[in-house]
Amino acid sequence: MTLEQKFKDLAAENAPGQEGRKTEIDLAALRRGGPILGDVVDFSHGDVDAFPPTPAAFDAWSQGFAAGGQQAYTEYRGSAPIRERLAQRLGSFTGKAVDGEDGMIVTPGTQGALFLALGATVTTGTKVAVVEPDYFANRKLVRFFNGEVVPIQLTYDENSTQRGPDLSQLEEAFRSGVEVMVFSTPNNPTGLVYSGDVIERIATLAATHNVTLIVDQLYSRLLYRGERYAHLRSCDVVPDNLIIIMGPSKTESLSGFRLGVAFGTPALITRMERLQALVSLRAAGYNQAVLDTWFCEPDGWITDRIAQHTVIRDDLLGIFRARGLVTATPQAGSYLFPRLPKLAVAPNAFVSLLRDQADVTVTLGDEFGPTSADSIRLNFSQDHDTACDAAKRLVAMVERYQA
Amino acid sequence: MTLEQKFKDLAAENAPGQEGRKTEIDLAALRRGGPILGDVVDFSHGDVDAFPPTPAAFDAWSQGFAAGGQQAYTEYRGSAPIRERLAQRLGSFTGKAVDGEDGMIVTPGTQGALFLALGATVTTGTKVAVVEPDYFANRKLVRFFNGEVVPIQLTYDENSTQRGPDLSQLEEAFRSGVEVMVFSTPNNPTGLVYSGDVIERIATLAATHNVTLIVDQLYSRLLYRGERYAHLRSCDVVPDNLIIIMGPSKTESLSGFRLGVAFGTPALITRMERLQALVSLRAAGYNQAVLDTWFCEPDGWITDRIAQHTVIRDDLLGIFRARGLVTATPQAGSYLFPRLPKLAVAPNAFVSLLRDQADVTVTLGDEFGPTSADSIRLNFSQDHDTACDAAKRLVAMVERYQA
Repeated sequence: MTLEQKFKDLAAENAPGQEGRKTEIDLAALRRGGPILGDVVDFSHGDVDAFPPTPAAFDAWSQGFAAGGQQAYTEYRGSAPIRERLAQRLGSFTGKAVDGEDGMIVTPGTQGALFLALGATVTTGTKVAVVEPDYFANRKLVRFFNGEVVPIQLTYDENSTQRGPDLSQLEEAFRSGVEVMVFSTPNNPTGLVYSGDVIERIATLAATHNVTLIVDQLYSRLLYRGERYAHLRSCDVVPDNLIIIMGPSKTESLSGFRLGVAFGTPALITRMERLQALVSLRAAGYNQAVLDTWFCEPDGWITDRIAQHTVIRDDLLGIFRARGLVTATPQAGSYLFPRLPKLAVAPNAFVSLLRDQADVTVTLGDEFGPTSADSIRLNFSQDHDTACDAAKRLVAMVERYQA
Repeated sequence: MTLEQKFKDLAAENAPGQEGRKTEIDLAALRRGGPILGDVVDFSHGDVDAFPPTPAAFDAWSQGFAAGGQQAYTEYRGSAPIRERLAQRLGSFTGKAVDGEDGMIVTPGTQGALFLALGATVTTGTKVAVVEPDYFANRKLVRFFNGEVVPIQLTYDENSTQRGPDLSQLEEAFRSGVEVMVFSTPNNPTGLVYSGDVIERIATLAATHNVTLIVDQLYSRLLYRGERYAHLRSCDVVPDNLIIIMGPSKTESLSGFRLGVAFGTPALITRMERLQALVSLRAAGYNQAVLDTWFCEPDGWITDRIAQHTVIRDDLLGIFRARGLVTATPQAGSYLFPRLPKLAVAPNAFVSLLRDQADVTVTLGDEFGPTSADSIRLNFSQDHDTACDAAKRLVAMVERYQA
């Protein structure tokens, strides 16, 4: 594969946050009706003005800056004392001790952690099980490192009794040479939380077939009432090679700091650090200080944030379902993934028209896998009223362009 | 090559800043004499406590944070208005207009820019001309992307009339299939500034042979009195594919923000952005706001900083040369690269002993190329008196371990 082809394959124009760059679609030829007025809403990511960063973030950063050189130049894997303190809290959260010294690396966002984890485990020809739909970068990363994507279907329909990845497909993939599996739980974009049984089964299968597991738990703190989260790393049987990825970018609205963390098998963490030395040296030094606020939020702060997201989730679900847009209830996180009915325009054109005519930005479903091209993803971590109004405009646009 | 071998090759234990991690050398068996007391000095990087960040950095960051969502979530290539403003100033500095919209990307440090630039141009089998000695990551990056390093010898001896890369070797390399060349000027680790004639010759040769040039100009602002800096991008003839890399981490002491910038051929910048979408999404949003202070320092601030570095440079050169350590005078930047005499222990053992017995950290020469294993690199952006005292301890250690 030439570099030209490789980078064509990595096109980021439809990726969340990139909608402002040029589109090549001739919207004038497709447009029906006039604008639908309302506040600009960008559902491609959470609105950190509506849900601001955790209260202590600014002070923690300022103290990091004031600490000077020792905070500016940390080890590539991140500040040792910060890692040590964070390991304690992540150990409590995930149900098993975390080794801050040898088994953890601080990265520039969870994206950075994913890149390093896949870079440390995937090379030319490596077969990687990738769930579909799942976070858009997973497939692209495997291809970037010249690995081979082995798709695993995810069932996330509201009423299915088989919600979760197709485990027989997964076992077959593991039997036939898959060496690495990467997946997110809660799933991005659907909000599905893998059940305890499913998590145990994946852990056991991976251990049996010596598969490396990379588990993206970015949204695991934003868990709705009544839901249970299963931590794979605290299963009785786990594979030898296991990396867990988390970060404070979402629930805690700290994305502007680009902080993530990966923890797991020391030999893999060492590889990830070697790669980090080439990629960006380290997560920005002063920013790392903000990790000291993580899992140390004021009492009730997380509970309150979850409660606010619950109201938005339920109200948007109401708006979509009232007009027949099939949408699963997310068990965690802040994504909705409604399926569009058959439209008179292609889904990517609809997404561009939605932005053009109704000032609503969403992310195309096919970013998350080829089987969900008829869905769109909305990050509903937004101002409640503005989001509801935008959802109504979205529904009106769907009706306008229905086939 | 297996991943195991590949990552062994990328060993970062001797890289600057990683000296705190375990060493496997049995120092007890090699040690001569007792400790040489003095303040701990880490010459592996500049001391941002001795030379603090530019004065407006904190306020700029705070304003970025206060700006909220728009600053947290920029395009992957960085905030459009910040790029636009910076392009103006970089155009003035480099002598030719810079396209902030399509021809520039903000990266997590210049390391991030180098990673993206090489990732965008090097794939399996790509031949890359790499100067030796030069920045340690250049060779590692080429190997990481499965390219082939074609070494080009750099002459940096104080008294040579041929200072610079071997141009006949370079032309031969370009003729025989090299597609990319990466180099730093001012050179890291030697402080050599490529002359105007050399820069023009490289630009012309690259244009003739259709070679992509990646020029790391990280230290180009810290230019000593009487020296001239030649900007390759403002040559009359330049290759179609050209990327310039700069950043405020060094002269301006803003390394703790992890900010860099690459500017040049739009098609390559687009590739770099696609890769950045996978690597870390973007440089930390709030930190990007600090770029507005760059090239906007108070009057005389840079001049004063250069003057302070000149004194330290000259005093350290005096200490080293008085004891016969051959050291070229850096024309720019803050690195000294003295050659060690023949020692009774291997250079890597000496570096460990120096840290162990004299509390002085330096970087091994072989990080910068196989031909400079008998040299050590010191970043002399340090407190003057502390640095001079540490240099004297270094010289005493050299005498103690001389063969």
